[in-house]
Order: sequence, then structure tokens, then C-alpha cells
Amino acid sequence: MNGAQALMKTLADAGIEVCFSNPGTSEMHFVAALDAEPRMRAVLALFEGVATGAADGYARMADKPAATLLHLGCGLGNGLANLHNARKGKVPVVNIVGDHATYHAQYDAQLQSDIETVARNVSPNFVRTSTTTAQLSRDAVDAIVAARGLPGQVATLILPADVSWGEGGVPCPPPESMQLEAADDTVVQSIAAAIRAGGKAALLLGGRALREPALLAAARLAQAHGVQLFAETFPTRMERGAGLPPVERIAYMAELASVQLAGLQHLVLVDAKSPVSFFAYPGKKSDLVPEGCTVHTLATPAQDAASSLEKLVQALDAANTAPALQEAQRPSRPRGRLSAAKVCKAVGHLLPDNAILIDEGITSTLMLAAMTAGAPRHDLLTLTGGAIGQGLPSAVGAAVACPDRPVIALIGDGTAMYTIQALWTMARENLDVTAIIFNNASYSVLNVELDRVGAEQGGAKAKSQLDLHGPVLDFTRLAQGMGVHAARADSARSFCKAFEYALAHPGPHLIEAVVPESISGARRKLLPWVLKSLPNLPEGAARALKRKIAP
Amino acid sequence: MNGAQALMKTLADAGIEVCFSNPGTSEMHFVAALDAEPRMRAVLALFEGVATGAADGYARMADKPAATLLHLGCGLGNGLANLHNARKGKVPVVNIVGDHATYHAQYDAQLQSDIETVARNVSPNFVRTSTTTAQLSRDAVDAIVAARGLPGQVATLILPADVSWGEGGVPCPPPESMQLEAADDTVVQSIAAAIRAGGKAALLLGGRALREPALLAAARLAQAHGVQLFAETFPTRMERGAGLPPVERIAYMAELASVQLAGLQHLVLVDAKSPVSFFAYPGKKSDLVPEGCTVHTLATPAQDAASSLEKLVQALDAANTAPALQEAQRPSRPRGRLSAAKVCKAVGHLLPDNAILIDEGITSTLMLAAMTAGAPRHDLLTLTGGAIGQGLPSAVGAAVACPDRPVIALIGDGTAMYTIQALWTMARENLDVTAIIFNNASYSVLNVELDRVGAEQGGAKAKSQLDLHGPVLDFTRLAQGMGVHAARADSARSFCKAFEYALAHPGPHLIEAVVPESISGARRKLLPWVLKSLPNLPEGAARALKRKIAP
Repeated sequence: MNGAQALMKTLADAGIEVCFSNPGTSEMHFVAALDAEPRMRAVLALFEGVATGAADGYARMADKPAATLLHLGCGLGNGLANLHNARKGKVPVVNIVGDHATYHAQYDAQLQSDIETVARNVSPNFVRTSTTTAQLSRDAVDAIVAARGLPGQVATLILPADVSWGEGGVPCPPPESMQLEAADDTVVQSIAAAIRAGGKAALLLGGRALREPALLAAARLAQAHGVQLFAETFPTRMERGAGLPPVERIAYMAELASVQLAGLQHLVLVDAKSPVSFFAYPGKKSDLVPEGCTVHTLATPAQDAASSLEKLVQALDAANTAPALQEAQRPSRPRGRLSAAKVCKAVGHLLPDNAILIDEGITSTLMLAAMTAGAPRHDLLTLTGGAIGQGLPSAVGAAVACPDRPVIALIGDGTAMYTIQALWTMARENLDVTAIIFNNASYSVLNVELDRVGAEQGGAKAKSQLDLHGPVLDFTRLAQGMGVHAARADSARSFCKAFEYALAHPGPHLIEAVVPESISGARRKLLPWVLKSLPNLPEGAARALKRKIAP
Repeated sequence: MNGAQALMKTLADAGIEVCFSNPGTSEMHFVAALDAEPRMRAVLALFEGVATGAADGYARMADKPAATLLHLGCGLGNGLANLHNARKGKVPVVNIVGDHATYHAQYDAQLQSDIETVARNVSPNFVRTSTTTAQLSRDAVDAIVAARGLPGQVATLILPADVSWGEGGVPCPPPESMQLEAADDTVVQSIAAAIRAGGKAALLLGGRALREPALLAAARLAQAHGVQLFAETFPTRMERGAGLPPVERIAYMAELASVQLAGLQHLVLVDAKSPVSFFAYPGKKSDLVPEGCTVHTLATPAQDAASSLEKLVQALDAANTAPALQEAQRPSRPRGRLSAAKVCKAVGHLLPDNAILIDEGITSTLMLAAMTAGAPRHDLLTLTGGAIGQGLPSAVGAAVACPDRPVIALIGDGTAMYTIQALWTMARENLDVTAIIFNNASYSVLNVELDRVGAEQGGAKAKSQLDLHGPVLDFTRLAQGMGVHAARADSARSFCKAFEYALAHPGPHLIEAVVPESISGARRKLLPWVLKSLPNLPEGAARALKRKIAP
């Protein structure tokens, strides 16, 4: 048995069933070993960012890692952005990077580069180059343990070609799974005391705290003690919709987030980090915790959010309080000329049961949360690390993990182009994904940001860097070029029709939603949108917001 | 003047006239500074790999660096593969990577990552995070000096947002240009003595040694002393065609390269590295220098190849020897069903004057060198670092550098998909590029490699990882989706017609050449091709080759 064959068996024995791959010559023995392992599915991507993004989306939905297969430092580079998103989302990935044979490195051949230095960016805690065939499977198990660790992470195993092809491979038994522990009693009691003492308190839920058991516990606390519930801005996976407790996400824009958090005296983190501004802006604070607010940590990402919240429920005598649950409620069918908001409305109107919703719509999906709040229960996956180009690959992975669930991915035109190759894998694997692309011919968010950072003198050359006209992308043709059924819609009616068709015909579809730019660079125009998307905003806060962001 | 404005002036003063960009929020001040600097052209890419590949192609043709503008660690990751190609090709690039404001790093926001660790992979000698606005322009000049250094390299300047937006920017005067020096007399004399002493000798020309002055000097030596001339396998830029000395490239396949180099007693490196196998293969040597052959270095990449060769010409009394020059000679117009070889033949038949030819055709362009050998003089750019996805971006950069020269890029279908977004930039900038995509629906080279690495048990699952069927890509639609005129050809006649149309209508064109897979996995089928592509192979060597690669 060669190294690759032993590795393949070791991965499969540990429950790793899918490898998202874009191989080259140095990975040929790993590829050849696929046929002897019926438990391993190999999903080919035309670009490494698709493979890594798919591994991210897969693990979010499967709750276990997939493997990747990348080709040396350059392949890892191409896959880095979506591994970054996985890292920030605490998503487990067993990232396998082929390398030259150990003895070949000295010759500095064309593809030779320092792979480890690149890998450290996304795998700060586990980068290992396996140096002997006999040890390879053991290294793989260590990588699996690291990936599935507390919390999940990207573990990078570098696999030299001769270690792969060498004889003497020894499969290694699977690692035991680790158990998350709940918060310490003293921590629970201290937080319970703070909440009992009164003062405005909120729970900030992230990671696993956005799954049903944790949400229900948090909602009991909200009901019993008036604690506000917030979700982190970009959840890895959030369960939501009718029948689940509704939770408002912290806004992307610091100006809005400050309004949401204003007046808080206690902010309790549950598998979440303390809120900070996405970017820095001249003269503005990066730390979004209001002055005078104490930040408590109930559960770190290495702890069990649900059982920690249950302990807090017990400590606060809320076990018998019924949580407030979201009522089933859908927006009406949109009419007239299409806009980004109407796309979101149509998604809310038509969302099927048990969908997986992927949101990389950037400015175009500001209304998505409000429009789908009472839709049938679904999972929401978002852009955890801010590295755009995550949505389409993530949809590939989610669909592979959950073949019986419809995946609906809402993607901006700019973001779609980073990893547009994902469409081909959707077609090849016949995945049940409907990709909705908002074509507004703009890096719309940057028009807002150009203003927000105070670079107001932006002239024609500057503006041209944020503009996607000349030529306007034709996503319908791009999809057809990769074998994906596609339709273009510029009216609400044609959009609904295309979406209904896609939902009725499982398999990959792309709908190009031609929409006007929803944000033309002026914050003033943004305001009504954000007010609608934050329905729980008290009147005073709304006024303050108006003064702040659109004086 | 803020930091970004001072930086922009400093870059322009130093002769950096183009910035290939894919910016985000942290780069908005740099973007805003574009309008105040008329000497700087900003070329937007939809994906960072296009920006970096364009910077590579630009510098190869302009003989000076462009700047890139990338967005944090993820943007750098996306651009890494083509920076790797630039690094391996010793191509100067001033790689500017925006970062969070210095004080924002501590908050570990979504896009926060260790940029320097990624950058080290491609910029081992110059990675600097600029930490103060006052120092920024000085840091930029240091980066320019490093990039233009001896030899050229990728210098990465990391630009925090607050350093960019801070007031107190001070432009810095341009650095002086450095002069390359010729080889030492003792080295020249020692090599001259070795050549005079007889025995089979060859010059291996790389880097700048593949430009006309060096080629002419080398060809005098060939004529006067029977020295063989070889070019490195993947030249950064090679001047060739009618009127220039013909030089045979070392073959990609080690089996072939061994035949080319067999019997050599002296191998003289001129701005080239000693030949090694591209990949390692079980049981095969990586070092391709034949036993008993002495390797001499006439000029390192830090030295001047042309003047070093001139010194050797003087030392060997060859100054008055007329070099053998390639005769003008074109293949006939191909007929019948299209094949990869016929595409190469058509390119040779029709190649316009003064073209820039980009070869990323992998298995499909085996015949390109032979078919264009006597075509009008042109520059050839190749895949220096082996990181595929270089050809289309490189064409963007070459066309920006040389707006009056037609750029013809021959690209494999697999490779084209890594950076297909380059087509949009070609359309937007109305670049005179004809992209010829060989659509054989296969990672054809991997079918050869699967066999070469000895992984012969490849079954259906393994083979599926090398296969691009299901669906077959439609490059005509992909091009149209990005605003590029496109045509599909499956006969030699329709290909010639499409190519003639493209050449007659300057601007971007894509021709999808539908070809059968030229290599079906059996080396036997490869043999006639490689024999034709190595016309100078003696009969004995051809027999040896047949025994070796197709027993």
C-alpha cells in the first residue's frame, strides 16, 4: 500500500467522505487512490477557490470536515481567500496541499515555493509537511483532530509526492471525537447576577449559538428577563425562520451597529467575539461596545454554547418560560420593475421548506433578513471572513452535504466573478442550487465606502475603479457557457417566474436579476433601506440614526 | 497631502505608469488619489489573479514594473499564483497590498490576517509594512529599487489604511537606475578555454539572454565553435522568428530534455539556471545535467547577459563570424478538420509582424515553436512558474504595455478557467488581444502525468478528475458574457477565417478552437509530435527517445 492509499483509507475511516479537488502532477497518486476507496467522493473544481469554498460550505452543513486537494503553493494561494472565510467562521477543513517530492525541493524547479509560509495565514495552529510514508496517516489524523478541534479550524497537511507514492503506507485508526464542555458554574452565576441586577443586557450569539437548541435557550432568557438577542454580523450558519426565535444581526455598518447596541450595560458573548467595526474609518472607533457596557463571556468558541445557555436558563429560573417564536409570515408577491429589494421580497414570498440560503449579496441583500424572517425554516450561511467570492463555492459544498435540500445563493455581480467557475461544478455534479446574481454593474458597496472613509474627492478615474460598466457582464451567457440553465429577469414578474421554475426543477439554475444600483454613493439613499431592515429599532434610535448617517 | 497622494506621485515620478487593481475599502484613499495623478493609468480587474498576471505581462514587455493594488491578505492570496510566475521569471512588480488601519489590527476584524506571511512566498527579499505616512513614499522607493533590482523581483509593500489617509505625506524622489555588469574576465577566460579545448558544449540561454543582442552574440559562438544553443524551458520573454538566431528550448519532459542534452561535456549558463526536471518522477533523476558534463556560469541573472556573451565572443575570436539567422518561412495554410497542431500551423501561417505571442497551450502547443520558427519576428512569453492561469492576464498586461502590437495568446481550456475574468478587462480597455482557447475538454497534460508518475491504476474516479466533460465548457458564450467578440472553429478553414478576422479588427477577440485531445494518455501518441517539434534531433537520439518514452 502506498502513502496515498493509506491516507485515503485513513480519511474515509475518520468519516471524511468528500474531497474537493483541483489536482496537478504532484497529486496524481492521491487521485489514483480514489478508485480503491468507495467511501470517498471527489468533486472537481476548475479553480482552487471553488474547492476551498465548497469545503467550507460543506462543513458548515455537514458538521464535519471535507478534504481539499490543492496543487503546491500556487494552488493554495488560489484557495486562500475561501480558507480565510472558513478560518474566520471556525469551520473545520482538512486542507491537503500536494508538494514536490522531498528530494526535488533542492532543485528549485518552476513550481517550488515556500508552501508553509502561505499556509500559516489560514492555518496558524496546524501546518505540517509530512516527510515519511510511514508517518503520513498519523499526520493526517493529527490534521483531522486539529480541524475538528475546539473550535473548528483549517488544518493544512502538505503532502510531498514521494511520501504519497512511497510504499509502506499504514492506515491510522480514526481519532476519538472531542466533547465540548459547558461554561463554568462561576461564570454562569456571575452573568446571572449581572442580568438579575437589572440594566439593559443583551446576548450576542455566534457560531453554534445560532443553532436551534441554543436559540431556544436564549429566547427563554429574552422572554423571562428582557434580555435582547443579537446575532453576530456574519454568522457561519444561522437557523432561522418560522417557528424559531427571531434574532437581529448586528449591522455591518458601524454607524448602525452603534445604534443597535446603544445604552447596553451588559453584553454577554456566546460563542461570539466582542463586536468591532468591519473596517476602520478616519476618526471613528473600531470597538463597537458602548461606553460603560461590561462585556461578559458565557461561552467561548471552544465551549458548548447550547449547554452553557441552558445553565444560564437554570440559573435565571427561565426553564419554564416559553420562548417567543417567529410566526409564519411571508411578504406578498412583488410587482413592477425589479429592484434588489423586490428580489429579496420574492425570495421571502417563495422560499421553499428547509432551504439553505446563502447571502453574499452585499448591498443588494440589505432587505433579505426582513423579507425572509417569517419564511419556512432555513439555514443562512454568510460571508464570515469578508473575502468575497465565497457564495457560489459555498453553495456547491452545501448542496453536496445536503442533497435533499434546495440551496439558494444570493450573490452580488462583483463578488460572483471571483469564483464564477463554481457554476461548472454545479452543472457537473447536478447540484440543486439556484444562484441569484444581482447585476447592478457596480462594486456598489465601494461607492458607499469611498464616501465613508472620507475620500470624498473621488473623481472619474477613482469612480471607474468601482464601476462594472463597459462592458456590463452577461451572467446568463456565463452560466450557459458552463452548462447551467439560466434566465434573465428585469421585472418582478419575470423574476418570480424564473425562481418558481428553478424551484420546480431541481438542479443548477442561475437567475440574473437586473437591478438598478440600490446605493448610488449617498448614504441618504441607504437610510430607508436600513430602517426597514432593522424593524425593531425604537423611534428614538431611528432619529439618532438619521442624524448620524444622513445628516 | 495625504499618504496615498504622496505615494501616487512617488510612483509616477519613478516611471510607474500603470496600476493593475482590484481594490476594496482599505484602498479607497489610494483610489481617490488616482485622479490627481494624470501619469498613472488604473486598470481594473475583476479578480486579483488577473491584476497580478497583467503586472507580470506588462513588465515583461515594458521592461519596467507596474504597480498592483490588492485588498488585504485575501486579495494577495488571489493574486499569489501569478506573482509566483513573475517571481520565477525574475519580473519586477511593485505589489501594493492594502491593509486595515494600524490600530484596527488588534480587533481581529473579519478581514484581518497575517499578510506578511503570505507575501513571503512571492517576495522573499522585500516585504514591508509601511507604518507612518511620513515614511510611506520612502518605503515605496525602497520597494521600487527592490523590484527593479538585480535581478527583477516582486516587492510587496503593505499599506495600512491610516498610513494612506494620514496627512503629512512627502513624495520621495525616484531612485537611480542600477547598471548590470558583465561577467568577470577570469570567468570568461575559463569558459573560453573550456570551449576551445573541444568537446561538446552548449549555451543555455535564459532571462535577458533571449533578447536580440545576446542571441546574436550566442549565435556567433555557435557558428564559430559549434556550440549548441538552448533556451530555458519556460522563457520570460524570448525574441524569435525570421531574422533572429533560432534557439531550441529545453523540453518540458525530462525524457526529452535528457535526449537534447545527451553527450554534453560543457553546459554554459547565461542568465539561466541549471536544467532540472519540472516535477519529480519515481525512479528518475531530477537533475538533467548529463553525467560528466561540467556546468559553467557565464552570467548570473544579476549580470548582463549580452555584454557577458560579447566578452566571450571576443575571447573566442568570433566577433567577425556571421551568426546563422532564421530564414523567413511559414507553414502552408492548414486544411480539413481542426487539431491542436493545425491551430499552431495557422498561427505560423498568419502571424502578423511584431506580434507578442503568449503560450499557455500546455499539450496543445507542442507544435507552436516549430510552426512559428520562421514567422515574422515576435516576442514569446511563457509560463515561467508553472502556475497556470497566467496566459490571459499576461496578455492584458502585454497589450497595455505595447498598444501598437497585436497580442496572440494560445491557452488551454483548463488553464483558461483559472483567470477567465481577464476577458472582461480586455473588453473594457479595448485591448488588441486575440485569445485562442484550445477546447479539448481535458486536463490533457495530467493524463500524461498520471501515467508518467507511475500511478497506472487510475480508474474511472481518478480519470474523472482530469476530464472536463459534463458539461463541456462553451468559451464562446463565456467570452460574449464578458463583452468579448468570439467565434468557434472546428475546421482549419473556419479557424483561419476567424483568426484573419481578429487580426483585421484590432481589439479583443476569442477564438474557441474545438480540437480532439491530442494526448489520450498514451505516450505513444505523443511521440510523433515531439519528434516533429524537435527538428534538430539526430536520428540516433530519435531512436533512443522512442525506446525511452514509447517502448
